[in-house]
Amino acid sequence: MQVVPPALEKLIQDLSRLPGIGKKTASRLALHIMRSPAEEARALAADLAELHTAVKLCSSCFVFSETDPCRICSDPVRNKEVVCVVEGPDDLLAIEKTGAYQGLYHILHGVLAPMDGIGPDEIKISELVNRIRREKIAEVLIATSSTVPGEATAAYLSRILHTEQVQVTRLACGIPMGMDIKYADEVTLARAIETRRESK
Amino acid sequence: MQVVPPALEKLIQDLSRLPGIGKKTASRLALHIMRSPAEEARALAADLAELHTAVKLCSSCFVFSETDPCRICSDPVRNKEVVCVVEGPDDLLAIEKTGAYQGLYHILHGVLAPMDGIGPDEIKISELVNRIRREKIAEVLIATSSTVPGEATAAYLSRILHTEQVQVTRLACGIPMGMDIKYADEVTLARAIETRRESK
Repeated sequence: MQVVPPALEKLIQDLSRLPGIGKKTASRLALHIMRSPAEEARALAADLAELHTAVKLCSSCFVFSETDPCRICSDPVRNKEVVCVVEGPDDLLAIEKTGAYQGLYHILHGVLAPMDGIGPDEIKISELVNRIRREKIAEVLIATSSTVPGEATAAYLSRILHTEQVQVTRLACGIPMGMDIKYADEVTLARAIETRRESK
Repeated sequence: MQVVPPALEKLIQDLSRLPGIGKKTASRLALHIMRSPAEEARALAADLAELHTAVKLCSSCFVFSETDPCRICSDPVRNKEVVCVVEGPDDLLAIEKTGAYQGLYHILHGVLAPMDGIGPDEIKISELVNRIRREKIAEVLIATSSTVPGEATAAYLSRILHTEQVQVTRLACGIPMGMDIKYADEVTLARAIETRRESK
């Protein structure tokens, strides 16, 4: 017999599709929401429904933004000659938090993973090349994670960008191997930005 | 500078209010939702908005249900002379999964926790007493968790129910001390139901 009300079961199914949320956690969260005032669930629902309407990709750097260009791209104070290439928006946030970087960004929205069918066309690489050709960019700072796919992506970018009129740099050693940059502490990350090296 | 779009930040705030979800997990989930197709976020939003409208408490046993009385209370096959008292709906689900119990339920929606200001009036105890007086209930099986507040609640219930015309039983030993019953394995839980003992 069906003992979980269908509407609750449906929410449990939805939640268990989120990354890192199993069936048990999804049940716990759904029951918490059920026990909380209806207004809280409705507020969360409204914010979720609004999300994709309000937030789009910046057509220049591909960060999630409510404006296009985004606040960073349109900030007159930022150094528009340096573009930092990151895998995802959470990496951008980690770098912004250090306060050590004043340039612009380019979000790849992924890393090269040929085994999973993710080649150069699946991530924002051609957009980066076009941007370098179109805008006055002096330096591309590659800040992919120091994981195997992150390093492979960095090596690939470094190779294709060497034919362009641009200096290509990498974050300095300092980030432990195998660590995702979004989890690096701010001091390590700031130091890696300051001592960034020429990509060979 | 505000680098996270406000609509995304709002969702992160909402999610980090859920139990066991910190700021970092909330960001990860929100970014996942942002990266997924808009329809998925809207489906989750719709299910959340619908939840409190569709699901109510059964006025007899206080389980979450889309019908009143709930499916268990209105099932002609169930033994209406036995009522199993549990802390929350997840405990009911754990017991239903064993298939060892055919009676009805009564959901307390909490346990006694005087330090947190949760006394007998904050949980569904008077409703249980009224139900025993109103309906033909022969046995109340107390199935609170074998945690300190669970045991205290069981002892309190046992004391007040002894003046009523009803047999009061407890789940048998078999559940390890300190374990929340919703995490007990099905065999242990089934055995504890079968060998339930008289509450003294």
